[in-house]
This record gives sequence, structure tokens and C-alpha cells, in this order.
Amino acid sequence: MTDGTAQGSKVKDMSLAEFGRLEINLAEVEMPGLMASREEFGPSKPLAGARVMGSLHMTVQTAVLIETLQALGADLRWCSCNIFSTQDHAAAAVVAAGTSKVFAWKGETLEEYWWCTEQALTWPDGEGPDIIVDDGGDATLLIHKGYEFEQAFEKDGSLPCPSTTTNEELKIVYRIIAESIQKDPKRFQKMVARLVGVSEETTTGVHRLKEMAKQGKLLFPAINVNDCVTKSKFDNIYGCRHSLTDGIMRATDVMIAGKKALVAGYGDVGKGSVQALKAAGAIVYVTEIDPICALQAYMEGVEVVLLEDVVDKVDIFITTTGNRDIIMAEHMAKMKNNAIVGNIGHFDNEIDMAGLLSNPEIKRQNIKPQVDRFIFPDGHGVIVLAEGRLLNLGCATGHPSFVMSCSFTNQVLAQLELWNNRANGKYGKDVYLLPKHLDEKVALLHLGVLGAKLTKLTPVQSEYLGIATEGPFKPDTYRY
Amino acid sequence: MTDGTAQGSKVKDMSLAEFGRLEINLAEVEMPGLMASREEFGPSKPLAGARVMGSLHMTVQTAVLIETLQALGADLRWCSCNIFSTQDHAAAAVVAAGTSKVFAWKGETLEEYWWCTEQALTWPDGEGPDIIVDDGGDATLLIHKGYEFEQAFEKDGSLPCPSTTTNEELKIVYRIIAESIQKDPKRFQKMVARLVGVSEETTTGVHRLKEMAKQGKLLFPAINVNDCVTKSKFDNIYGCRHSLTDGIMRATDVMIAGKKALVAGYGDVGKGSVQALKAAGAIVYVTEIDPICALQAYMEGVEVVLLEDVVDKVDIFITTTGNRDIIMAEHMAKMKNNAIVGNIGHFDNEIDMAGLLSNPEIKRQNIKPQVDRFIFPDGHGVIVLAEGRLLNLGCATGHPSFVMSCSFTNQVLAQLELWNNRANGKYGKDVYLLPKHLDEKVALLHLGVLGAKLTKLTPVQSEYLGIATEGPFKPDTYRY
Amino acid sequence: MTDGTAQGSKVKDMSLAEFGRLEINLAEVEMPGLMASREEFGPSKPLAGARVMGSLHMTVQTAVLIETLQALGADLRWCSCNIFSTQDHAAAAVVAAGTSKVFAWKGETLEEYWWCTEQALTWPDGEGPDIIVDDGGDATLLIHKGYEFEQAFEKDGSLPCPSTTTNEELKIVYRIIAESIQKDPKRFQKMVARLVGVSEETTTGVHRLKEMAKQGKLLFPAINVNDCVTKSKFDNIYGCRHSLTDGIMRATDVMIAGKKALVAGYGDVGKGSVQALKAAGAIVYVTEIDPICALQAYMEGVEVVLLEDVVDKVDIFITTTGNRDIIMAEHMAKMKNNAIVGNIGHFDNEIDMAGLLSNPEIKRQNIKPQVDRFIFPDGHGVIVLAEGRLLNLGCATGHPSFVMSCSFTNQVLAQLELWNNRANGKYGKDVYLLPKHLDEKVALLHLGVLGAKLTKLTPVQSEYLGIATEGPFKPDTYRY
Amino acid sequence: MTDGTAQGSKVKDMSLAEFGRLEINLAEVEMPGLMASREEFGPSKPLAGARVMGSLHMTVQTAVLIETLQALGADLRWCSCNIFSTQDHAAAAVVAAGTSKVFAWKGETLEEYWWCTEQALTWPDGEGPDIIVDDGGDATLLIHKGYEFEQAFEKDGSLPCPSTTTNEELKIVYRIIAESIQKDPKRFQKMVARLVGVSEETTTGVHRLKEMAKQGKLLFPAINVNDCVTKSKFDNIYGCRHSLTDGIMRATDVMIAGKKALVAGYGDVGKGSVQALKAAGAIVYVTEIDPICALQAYMEGVEVVLLEDVVDKVDIFITTTGNRDIIMAEHMAKMKNNAIVGNIGHFDNEIDMAGLLSNPEIKRQNIKPQVDRFIFPDGHGVIVLAEGRLLNLGCATGHPSFVMSCSFTNQVLAQLELWNNRANGKYGKDVYLLPKHLDEKVALLHLGVLGAKLTKLTPVQSEYLGIATEGPFKPDTYRY
Repeated sequence: MTDGTAQGSKVKDMSLAEFGRLEINLAEVEMPGLMASREEFGPSKPLAGARVMGSLHMTVQTAVLIETLQALGADLRWCSCNIFSTQDHAAAAVVAAGTSKVFAWKGETLEEYWWCTEQALTWPDGEGPDIIVDDGGDATLLIHKGYEFEQAFEKDGSLPCPSTTTNEELKIVYRIIAESIQKDPKRFQKMVARLVGVSEETTTGVHRLKEMAKQGKLLFPAINVNDCVTKSKFDNIYGCRHSLTDGIMRATDVMIAGKKALVAGYGDVGKGSVQALKAAGAIVYVTEIDPICALQAYMEGVEVVLLEDVVDKVDIFITTTGNRDIIMAEHMAKMKNNAIVGNIGHFDNEIDMAGLLSNPEIKRQNIKPQVDRFIFPDGHGVIVLAEGRLLNLGCATGHPSFVMSCSFTNQVLAQLELWNNRANGKYGKDVYLLPKHLDEKVALLHLGVLGAKLTKLTPVQSEYLGIATEGPFKPDTYRY
Repeated sequence: MTDGTAQGSKVKDMSLAEFGRLEINLAEVEMPGLMASREEFGPSKPLAGARVMGSLHMTVQTAVLIETLQALGADLRWCSCNIFSTQDHAAAAVVAAGTSKVFAWKGETLEEYWWCTEQALTWPDGEGPDIIVDDGGDATLLIHKGYEFEQAFEKDGSLPCPSTTTNEELKIVYRIIAESIQKDPKRFQKMVARLVGVSEETTTGVHRLKEMAKQGKLLFPAINVNDCVTKSKFDNIYGCRHSLTDGIMRATDVMIAGKKALVAGYGDVGKGSVQALKAAGAIVYVTEIDPICALQAYMEGVEVVLLEDVVDKVDIFITTTGNRDIIMAEHMAKMKNNAIVGNIGHFDNEIDMAGLLSNPEIKRQNIKPQVDRFIFPDGHGVIVLAEGRLLNLGCATGHPSFVMSCSFTNQVLAQLELWNNRANGKYGKDVYLLPKHLDEKVALLHLGVLGAKLTKLTPVQSEYLGIATEGPFKPDTYRY
Repeated sequence: MTDGTAQGSKVKDMSLAEFGRLEINLAEVEMPGLMASREEFGPSKPLAGARVMGSLHMTVQTAVLIETLQALGADLRWCSCNIFSTQDHAAAAVVAAGTSKVFAWKGETLEEYWWCTEQALTWPDGEGPDIIVDDGGDATLLIHKGYEFEQAFEKDGSLPCPSTTTNEELKIVYRIIAESIQKDPKRFQKMVARLVGVSEETTTGVHRLKEMAKQGKLLFPAINVNDCVTKSKFDNIYGCRHSLTDGIMRATDVMIAGKKALVAGYGDVGKGSVQALKAAGAIVYVTEIDPICALQAYMEGVEVVLLEDVVDKVDIFITTTGNRDIIMAEHMAKMKNNAIVGNIGHFDNEIDMAGLLSNPEIKRQNIKPQVDRFIFPDGHGVIVLAEGRLLNLGCATGHPSFVMSCSFTNQVLAQLELWNNRANGKYGKDVYLLPKHLDEKVALLHLGVLGAKLTKLTPVQSEYLGIATEGPFKPDTYRY
Repeated sequence: MTDGTAQGSKVKDMSLAEFGRLEINLAEVEMPGLMASREEFGPSKPLAGARVMGSLHMTVQTAVLIETLQALGADLRWCSCNIFSTQDHAAAAVVAAGTSKVFAWKGETLEEYWWCTEQALTWPDGEGPDIIVDDGGDATLLIHKGYEFEQAFEKDGSLPCPSTTTNEELKIVYRIIAESIQKDPKRFQKMVARLVGVSEETTTGVHRLKEMAKQGKLLFPAINVNDCVTKSKFDNIYGCRHSLTDGIMRATDVMIAGKKALVAGYGDVGKGSVQALKAAGAIVYVTEIDPICALQAYMEGVEVVLLEDVVDKVDIFITTTGNRDIIMAEHMAKMKNNAIVGNIGHFDNEIDMAGLLSNPEIKRQNIKPQVDRFIFPDGHGVIVLAEGRLLNLGCATGHPSFVMSCSFTNQVLAQLELWNNRANGKYGKDVYLLPKHLDEKVALLHLGVLGAKLTKLTPVQSEYLGIATEGPFKPDTYRY
């Protein structure tokens, strides 16, 4: 995630690090879970002795996470998990404070990206981390691939060969590992031996981990932070509710009231999106494949339609599906002039960018960064946000700090959970949900600053319900 | 659930059965899932040959369920699961139509209640049902107790002795079983042998079943209908959202706009309740023990407080917790004059009725049925709805038919699932969730009447997502 | 307004007057403006010496108004302004308390109705009232007609002749006046001479007054209470928002969530109705003739359609127009089976009841009081609420007490305004809005009980704005 | 209104005029009232022969207004009404198209500003305009002052003397007039003689006009566009609802959900603001001086408090009052760290900027343009948006085009009304509301693009209501 606005408008008489520090300090107030973690755990330094490596967008919010882990005693090295997502002022401030080594800058090449990842995994003594904060699984991938190829090398002296793959990134990974084996053929095996575990932030990363676990190839414990309630519901519903209309407005200044909007998908992201659009005064339709979600839409007064049936009367189209091929060039050919099309789901293939870009009859008119108008042969144009990528990141600033604080506090508790249980065998080579009571603790750490007062169960009530007074308060199957 | 209003206002020149038929016909339009089931499954009579026994409130909505099961070929006997809940006109109409034998009337004694249950379990040939629709688990209990005592009798000739229990209902159950054993010492064992399974409607019933399964005492398969998404979320959120303010208004005619309301508990019932009260213009507070739910409340703009801190300024108090001792007489002593106190959670011990009724200094002033004013020594009064029991049932007519249709369509599909798999060993002596695809089917059957058009996955999308085009569309852990 | 529910369920061991007193006491808590008036003005008895005659629905809420006027010193006589609207227990309680003479009962004949009006206008000494609280203008009408015919009689000895009018009510009025003239040919002229003025409650009454004033025939000052902000907006928006869904639910128990609803008219009543239906989860459409109101509908995310275009897919039709012929029998012929049709606008001719009732091919099926199903030749039925009359009155209990308190506090202040200025010529023979500062005072008197704290202008602010610290705070043209 | 964002991000290979044209074309789609005016009136050129002078922010939206007036035949000259509000690319595009003469650029000095105004008022033949579009009344002021001083000069040869006023702007105005009189002592008198009238956009301008009319000094007819429903309600409620949270988010990226927000004032701007903040998930409080507005707040579930009572627990403070001294430095001294303070009311004196800036103990930390943090001696900071000026303009892009289209279509109709009635004496030297039917027409012209279908009154209905089928549909006192 880049934050061009903030950088563009930074006060001119500050250094990059000073500006980063200012923004970090402002973000701290909006990240109460992390600050409360510092307060609660800081004094006892529970991560003292732990080498923590992070591969996660090097933003202002992540800086607050990094500095929290450091306050808990960790010895840190960090890289970004996306070539564009580093906020240089955030990186500069962290470096200036000496909180963590940082290998990240905005606009890395893929070569540079994997070099950064490797550096972040390598402590000065040549060894690796004890625990990893991963986002998307690239750090985990490099270690697993390294381990696999070291074993192959041991067996038959073979080295990974970039030409065996067409994937640009894998070519680079192979090259790095080949070089590594030639220097130290045990390096990744030692790294694995030391590793206590990883906590993974995203759906994609968790999916990779589960595949490895299923195949029996996972080399160390993994905690799935992604599916914590305080991560998934908060990111998806409340985060998107905040940032969807924010992105649309910053990009187009369009009045949403009175307009017709179609939200493709009524999962958590769709639910947050519909709530935001209705609140702004839009007439909202939903498309769904899942009848349960469709029925939920009706319960909130939202009609479930086929895209085809409304494509020529809707003003704003938003995809939230995680699926592909939702809004195709053929659909856009039938839309009203200046219909707005944006994606807040997952990949840019929810919208048929390929179809738009490959058709020579469709002209692209760039209006401003992240806002393009595609003009069809009949003269009507369609405004596509963020080139089909996540519009809340591309056209606004993504999830607000408070939402990221929920997510990152889960990371802190996951790191503590892995480290505290490093010696007792609680976690094997599998993927674990963060225990419910820690999910609840994340919520708890965010309530104080909002002024909440929680009721406590009496002993009689506790016994009546069969629930301990300190929780966990719900079974794992509870849907919230 | 009694529906005194409807009965009280029934047109005088109709017979009870005619009036019941009129109301059943009206309800059918609001129960599209059941009607769609008739249309889809009716022609093939998949329940032909199945003896279905039901123990579930004999209301108009249940009549639509009964007639659906009959349309699918079932041979039916029915009783109510609550001594007060029968709507006599509904029972009369079912009997008049010859759809099912019915053993139920409004205002049974406990003796009569268990006699009805026994009759419903006993076909003219002396044998029992193939499948059971249970609500609260009383039919299941009678069979399990009968089976247990028959085995004891076989072993040592002992008979159940009412004096061994202080529970009034159990005394009756023991008496019935003792008589039964004396007539036919194998009756319940034969019943169990025949039984394909039970589908259970409620939290309480599921809890009992799980306890039995855990102890290895469950004698036949059980399907947990209660935790289907289309049951739990629809009952709890949308059903209560509908009926909470309905109940308050019918009972008190109070203007909710501008008033301060406190909702104890922000689970699904609490979420529906808060939504209804906010929509009516109230200033709403929540009390919670669970920090995750509390944080969700804030995300919807609702403050989480302690009851003690607001007890003297709130106008309307609603309990939704499933817990006990939520609003005590001491709290009510501090409330504003004519504060309203009601429960839409579970049992009447959410409100300290015992404390109100046992204190001679607190005077009870009955305003109208289900509405009492308790006057404290200082002269202020508190209006308690439905004597602390579920106010949406006591003061209004409970969940609307559409919500019950979701719940009951799950029952129909559960009965089919049990019956269709009776011979293949799919279900053992355990408690099962209804498979996700059936939960989704329930939703599907309710969408047509609302005018929904569902999008279908293309083969490419299906492969991309790893989801079959006909579903199930979500993992079991999905929270909706 | 009749309140059958409350009466039907009244506690059996109370007298009618005791039950009325109980309900009056409960209503007082919800009518803070009236109670605050008693507190502020009661001690000084500003209406001492004033004879106040009221012609306004003799309900529980009106009883609180009556007892407020009495607490301010008035000498009262009261009748109802509708043959069905008296709540007998309310009347009984007022009579038992000796607060006012009351001439009203539920179910008067038209003859009885006008007899009651005449009695209420006639003090034991034969003279009339000093001030009148009128609702619909019948008391005012009787006086004006009496005055007119007395003058005609003086001129030429003629008496009003019932056969000169086809209007049933006017025939009765003429008869009463003819008798009166024969007893005392100056009675109404003396009444007019004494009269300080009238405060009128309704649109219809105000319309009549304005016509008379335009023609120069108005005989005494009139204050238009109907168009106070605290009357019109509160009655129309908030009152209907409360009572529309209340009425629909009590009548049909239908689940509104997921249903399509059409609201004809987006004036204040329409705005309240749409808000209520959207809040209940309906998909709402509006029909409008006025483009400004139509554009307001879009700003709230509501589509403006033609009835014809959606008549076959809407589930609930509500008229709010004050116009006639909105939903015709031809429309109902095209509706879905069991579509619900109700009116919360003005007269029952918003719905084509005549068309339904006069067509022998349309069968009427009475479901319960105030709920009829009209069955069309093709077999589909349409459920009509309250026989096309105001469904919130017919199927629920009308506006809640709090809303009536706003309206009635305006009446109290209007009565005081008339009485206090009886001698200074402030009000001539014209129709006046209640001064803005009194409208504001009505609001003020309702804020205390809600816990509001108003900010006071500082002298500097007061001068800056050119607004006195005690108000009025807005120009007369302000739209709120 | 400046639009730094758009300019900052403008595509680099376009000229300023090309970029302006692109933005104007995009805005046209969002300004359907203006485009519909072109379609309806364009062919007949009703403004042919009319010289139209405009003094109104030279933005993209205004460009669409200008080009509409030109399409109707007007001969145009334009200046801005604020030294900062010109969007240079909009001005460049209008000039490039030759639509109007434009005298405006971003960042004028006051001297330049009044020079521009004078130029815009002066056609090449030395004469003035026939009609004026004014915003704030500066063009009108210059003419009135010129006329007044010309008459004084005639009488006694005196010239306006800048030293007689301390007002910086008036000094300049005097200088200009003094020079003008020396060149042509009849210039402004001739201008007045020619002038058909002015249509005024704002509250301030209308206030000035009414003062002049009251004193008998108004020299030509004026139409008050500001108080049209389609201007005032749309600007204030819907415009602010759109742009308030937009501004807060762009400025601070703060998550509004869960936060406590206080809105000072519950007039139309306050109502829109509260709606936006509640929709975003805030817990909202209101402060009010007017009891009617306060009671309306309660009806929407919003508590009315004193600022003093909540100042230490609120996170976001918004002023909407039009009053001064609402949030003082003393208040800010008691706020939470990083509380946000912004104004969307009127002038920057709603917030005590003077108090902040003049206190040497309070440090100012500039975070980014239009966002400052004021640090108090105890270390806590308060974030002030847009230096206390309108935050929706300063931190976002003000009202969206659709809202401006309503406002500007009123201007077009007002100009037509003045011009069409120039010879018939319909308008004298007074301030007139735009006739209701034109207000309705503005709404009508915006409905087509939204897909609205308006119902037409039948002749029977028209007679029943006493309303012409083509409107106007409401009395002038209707509050909407």
C-alpha cells in the first residue's frame, strides 16, 4: 500500500524520518490494542531473546507493530511483502529509531524484493529468526524452498534451476537458493531447526500453509491470524465499510445519494460495502451465488439481481467476491456513460481489465492517477478505479489504523503464543487458529480507549452458563 | 405460543376448524420454503412409508409444516411441546383435514401433556415412529428414559419410582413408563430399534442430545437443526428484530423514539434487538461480558456500559443473554418511574421475577394481560412485560411465519436426510449438523417468492474457486 | 379513535373509571409537555374564570389535556369530535374525578353526537364558552350556523329547514338550531359575543376556518395549532413512523423484512412511513406527483416509480397522499396474492373501497376486525386494512401519547394565548399561527423528561446572530 | 473553493485548458439539471441579447453553469467571488472555448479581486450587464456603492475616501469608485438603469439584499435563490452529509466507527452531519439552543448535551451553527489527545482559532495542508481541520456536482425569470423568492437521469386537491 497523498503533502521542512515519526505517533492513538500490549507486556519483555523476522507491508501502521514487538523485547528484522507498499517515511523513522533493521523501499524490483526478504531472514551471525510474521507467505516460501533444495542437493548434488519455471519470481527464488547452497548447504535446514513458528496474516498465506500441512510438508507450526474474528470481521466488514465510499469519493467526487449501486457478492466485504453505500443514500442491488447470503441481503432490504438485468441502469459497480470474471468488458459495453467500476474484493481479475486493455477499439483516457475512463466505440465511457485492483488501497488509504490495530494485535499475541510455547510441544507442524481467548483479548485491548465497560459474570452466572468468568465466552463455531 | 389475539378476534360465524384453515392458508403464502418443498418433493412422495412423530408447538405455522410432511408422504402423529402453546383453531383445522393425528390443546395439565406425548409416539399397531421432529427434546427424553428403565427392569425387575425425583414432570414420566413396562416390557426398546433418528429444533434440545452423545447414551442419530444458519441467524437476528418492538408497542404503546434503551447482551438476539430499537429512534446502550461482541457494538455506534451506571436514566430495559440474574429487583428499585423491563433472551430468570414477587413491599398492579406494574415503596413503578418470559411471544405473536418457514424447512430437509439415509449408515448414534448444502437449499427455497435471481458460477469460476457450481459455497467455519 | 384492545383486555375487577384512571396515570408519564404545563402554570391558575369547551376525541390522552386545562383553572365541558373515538374508560375517569363535564361515549348516533356538542357548548346558566378547543371544526360550525340563522330569523323570521340539504349531518344541525331559535333567538349571538377564540387541531378544521376568514365570515379569532412544527412534523413524521408498522404487524403479523413496499406520497407522512418500512428491512418504492419530494426520496436511496410499473411485484401498498383514487380496484386486480393494502393518509377514498365493495365478482372475506381479504375472480386475494381508513388508528392505537402531548401542549398554550390577550386586540377575526416562541416552548416542555440539556446563547452570540437568548430562534419560513 | 488534489494529480501531458475540459465534461454528467436546461431552452435562445455578469467561484461546476447560460444565448463575463476559489483549469477551459470572458485566478490579491469584479461588470462598450448572478453580493455591493457615491458627487462633488473606513476591502472599493467617477460620473447610474435584476446564491448575500430593501435602498429586483428548497435543503443536508465524512477521512484517515462525535447545531447542516456520522458508526451527540431542533434530534435517537459535559470524552467535534464562539480554546484544553475539531457551519469563528493562535503556550504542529495539531502545555494535542474554515471545502472538494447542479439550475431559472419579465413590472425593487413552480422545475430536471417516473394528477384528483396538474404542488409555507 502506498500513501502518495501523505507523502505528497508532507511538510517540507521535516526530514523523511521526522515526518514518519509524526505519522507513527498519530497512528499510535488509533492503535490502542498495540499500545495496550506494550503497557501490559512491555515491562516483562516476554520476547526477550526472540529473533522476530517480519515480511509485511512497511507502512506507518506496521511501524507501530514493529515498535510494539521491540517493546516486548524482540530482536527484529523487517522487509515488505509487496514491491510498492513501503511508505518510505515509515521505514525511515523505524530505522532512525533503531527499532528494527528494515529492508524495504517503495518501488523495489522483483530482484530487490527477494534480496530484501533474504536479508531480513539473515541475522549478522548467519542464522535465521526464531519466529516470523508473514503476510502472503513469501518468507515461509523461501525457507521451504531452500530446505527442499538443500535436501535435494544433499541427495544428488542438484541445484535449483531457474529455467525449470516460467514464473518470474520463482526464477529469482531459485537463483537465490542456488547461490545460498553453494555458500552454505545447511543454511535453510539450520534456519528451520531454529524456527519456533510463523503467524500468517492473509487468506492467501493461510491457504498456502494449509496446502503444505495437508501434504505433510509444513516444516514448523503456523498460526492462522487471518481467521480470527477480530481480524476477519473487522477487516472485511468495518474496514471496507469505511474505505469503500472513501475511495469512490476521493477518486470521483461523485454524489452517491440517489445513484444506483450494484455490489457483486454479499459476504463480509459485500455486507460492509452495502452498508456504506446505503448509508450514503444509494439504491443498492446485490448479486450472489450463495442463497444464504442472498437471503441475508433481503433481510436487510436489498434486492438480489443478475448483473445482466441491471447493467444498463446502475451507476456504480463494486466487486467484492474473491472470484474472477465478475464484470466483463461485454458488461461495460452496455453500461451508462460514466458508470463507475471498482473492485474491493481480491485480485484485479474480478474486473476484466485484460478485456478492456486488449481491445484496440476501447480507448483509455487517464483522468488522474488510479482513475481511468475507458471509452467504447459508441462513445460512452466507463470509469475504472485503481486499474481493477483494490480501490480502497488505490484510491484511498486502505483500512484505517484502528482496524489494522485489531489485526496486528492478533499478530503480537500469536508471536507471544508461539514463543511462550516453544518448548512444550503445544504446537506441531500444522496450522492453528489463534485460541479463542486470545481473539477475545484483542477485542478487550481495543475497548478501553472507546470507553467501554464490560460486565463481569458472577460466580453463579458463570456456573449457570458453564463459562469461565474470564472467557472464552463462545464456542469455536459461534458466528458473531 | 398462544395466540390469544387471533383467537379472540376470530370471526364468529366460522367454526374453529374453518378459522384455522383460513389462517393456515394465509400463513402458507408467508412460508415459501415449505410450499416449495411440497412442490419439489410432493410428487415423488419421498416420505411414503415413514411414520413421523412431532413434538412441537401446535400452531398455525406448525400446521403448514405438518401438511408439508404429509404432502411428502409421511404418516403423522403430533403433540405440542408446551402446555400453553397450542392454537386450538390450528389443531382443529389439521384434524378436520385428516392430515395428522393431533394430541394437543391450549392449557394442558402436565399429566395431559405427557399423555399427549405418549399418544403421539404410539401408532395404532402399538409401534412407534420412524423419525421424530422434536422441540426441546421431550419425545426423545421419554424414549430414552423408557429404554433405560426397561433395561433395568430386565436386569432386576425394578420399575421407575416417582418418589425418587422432586421434579414434577419427571414424576409423571416415571409413572407413564412404569405403567408401560407392566403392559409391554419391550415397548421402548422396539421403538428405539425402529427409530431412524430425530431432528431437534432448539438449543435446549441440542444441549441434551450432545450430553447424551458425550456419555455414549444416545440411542439413535440426531440432526441439529438449531444451528443451521437459516435457523439460528434468522430466528435470532431477524425474528427478534421484527418482534421485539412489536411486543413493546402492543404491550405499552410507548413511543420508542427519543427514549433511552438498554439491551443486555449483543449476541444475535441482541444485535437484532439493537437494530430494531435504533431504527425506532431510541438512544441505545448495550451491556456485554464478551469483548468481541462489545467491540462489534461500538462498530455499529452503540456504547457498552454497566447496567449500574445507567440504571436510573434508561427508559426501556431488554435482556437477550440466555444468562440469569441480569436485571435484579435492586436494579428495578433504582429505575425511573414507568421504566419498561422485558426479556427476549431465554428463560424468565434473566429478570429477577422471584425478587419482585417475594418482596411484600413491592406491589403488583396488573395493567392488562402480560403487562404488570410493580410499585416500589418510594412510589415509582416498573412495567414488566410477559412476567419476565419472552415478551415477543407473550405480548406479540412471536416470530413471523417467514422466519418459522426457514426453521421448519430445515426440519423437512432433516427428516428427508434421515429417512433417505436410513439404510446406509451415514448417520450413527451422534448429533450431526444438517449438511451445509441443505442449509443453503433452505435459503434457496425462500428466495423465489422474494423475486431473487441468483448468479450461477461458470465452469471457469467454479474451478478457480474450487467450489462446485451447485454449492456448498462456504466452509463450515464461515461466519456469515 | 377507539382502543378496543385496551378495553378488551382491561382488568376485570376494576370499574371503568378505575381502569381509565390507571391508563391516564400511565399516559401522564408519556405526556411531559402537559405535565410540565401543570407545573409551570398550575400555581397561578391563568385560566381561572375561563370557560373552556372542547370538541376533541375523548381518549385517555385527551383526558390528560382536559385535566391539564383544569389544573390551570379552566371550567370545562367536553364532547368528542367523532362518533366512534371515545374511550369510555377515559370518559368515566374524567367524570369520576369531576374534572370536566363530559358528553361522549363510544358509538354515538349522529343525533346523539350533535346533542353532545350542543350540551358541551351550553353552561348551566345558558351561556357558552369563553374559548374552544376544536378538532375538525364542528363546534365552530354549529356556532357559525346558529349565528347565521339567528340573523336570518331576525331579518325575516325564517328558520333553517333540514330539507334544504342532502347532508345528513347538516339536517341535524339545522334541526338543533331551529329549536334553539324558537327557545332563545339570541343564544348563538350571545355565545359569539362572549367568545374569545378557538384553537383548531386539524388540517380540515383549519381549512374551514381559512375559508370563513377569506369570506369575511369568521366571527372570532382562531389559532391554527395544526401547522405548528411541534404538531405537524411530530404527528406526521414521527407519529406515523411509529404507528405504521405497528398497525401492519398487529393486523397481519407479516414479516416486513425482504418484502417490497410501495409508499404513495413522500410528504411528511410518507417520509415517516418510508423510514419505518426501510428500518424493518423492506425494499421500498415511492410514487410522487411533486418533483421536489421525489428528489428527496432519491436522496434517501428510495426509487420513485409509477404504481402501474410495480403493481404486480409489490407486497405492501401504503397510501399517504391526502388525495383520492390512489389505489383502485383495477390495481388490486393485478396484485400478488395476499398483497397488503393500507391507508395512513387521510380519508378512505385513497383506496378504492367503493370499487371493491360494489363489484359483485369481488368476494369479501373477513379475517378479523379491521382486516379483510378481497378475493378476485382469478382467485387471488388482497388484504385491505381498516376498510381503507387510517390503518394506524384502525389496526393499532394511533399516535403514541408522547406525540399527542406535543400536539396538546400546543393547544394549552394556544388557549392561554387567547385568554391572556382577550382584552388587548392582539387577535382579530382571522386565523393565526401560534407564535413561533410558543411552538418552541412546546418543544422545550418535552425535553426535560428526555434528559436534554440546551445550550444558552451568550450575549455576544445573541447579538452576533440577532437572536434573543430566549428565542424565537428561527424565522417563520424556516423549514426544519 | 480550490481543488488542489485534482490539480496536483492532473495528467502531465495535458494543457491546463484540456484538463479543465476533461473535468467539465465529467461534471456535466453529474449536473443533469443544467444539461436538461440546455436541452429544453437551448434551441430557443431565451437569453439572446442578455448580458449576464457572474460573480461566483470559478470552478469546474460553475463552468458548466456558464456554458449553460451561454447555450441559452447569454453574452457572459465572469469573475470569482473569493480570492482562493478559482480552479485555474476550469477558467482556462472556459476561456479556451470562448464561452465567457473570465477574470479570475487562484490566489488573487484583494486589489486584483476587485479589479476582476469591475472588469466583469464592464462590457467593451462601457456599459454593464442586464442581469447578474451574484454569490455573497460583492457585484451588487460595488454597483450600489458606485451609485450612491455618484449621487453624492452630483450633489456636492465629493468622492469616496478610503480613509473613512477601516475595512480593507471597502478601502479598495472606494478607490475604484473614486477613479470611476472621475472618468465617468454617470457610469453606475447607467448600469443601474440597464439592470434587470440579480439572482443571489447565498445566505450572506440575501441578508445584505434584504437589509437594503428594508431601507428602501435596493436599486433593482433581486431573486433569492438561496432559500429555494432545491438549493437550501440539498446544499445543507445532502451536500454536507456527503462531504463531512469525506473531509474528515481525507484529512485524518481516522476510523469514525466506535468514536464519539459531537455535532454543534441540529439545523439542516447539523442534520446532514449527524446522519453521516451515525452511518459511519459513530456515537453522536448534539448541542442545540433551539428546543424544536433539539426535540427533532431525540426523535432520531440522538442525545442533546452541553459541550462542557462531554468535552473530555468526545473524539470528533463538528460545528454547524452559523454562530460564533462554539468551541473555544478552553474547551480544546480539556479534550482528549488527538481529538479532531472541524467546522462545516459558516465562518471560521465557530472555532476559536484566535484563541489558539494567540496563546504562546499552545504550539502549532502542521501535519499536512489543512491539518494542524495544536499542542497544549500538558502535552495533549487537538487536530484542527482547515484552520477552522469549512472543512468540506478545505479538506475535501466541497459539495458534489449533483448538489451544485440543483443550486445552479435555480440560478438559470432565476436568470430566465428576470429576463423574461424584464418589461412587465412583475418584479420591483425588492427581494423575491423564486416562484415555487420553478423550484419544482429544478427538481424535475434532476429526476430524469435518476430514472424517476412521476405520477400525474388526474383531472378529478386535481380538482379534489385544488392543485393544478402541473403544480405548484405545495403552499409556500410547506416545510418539506
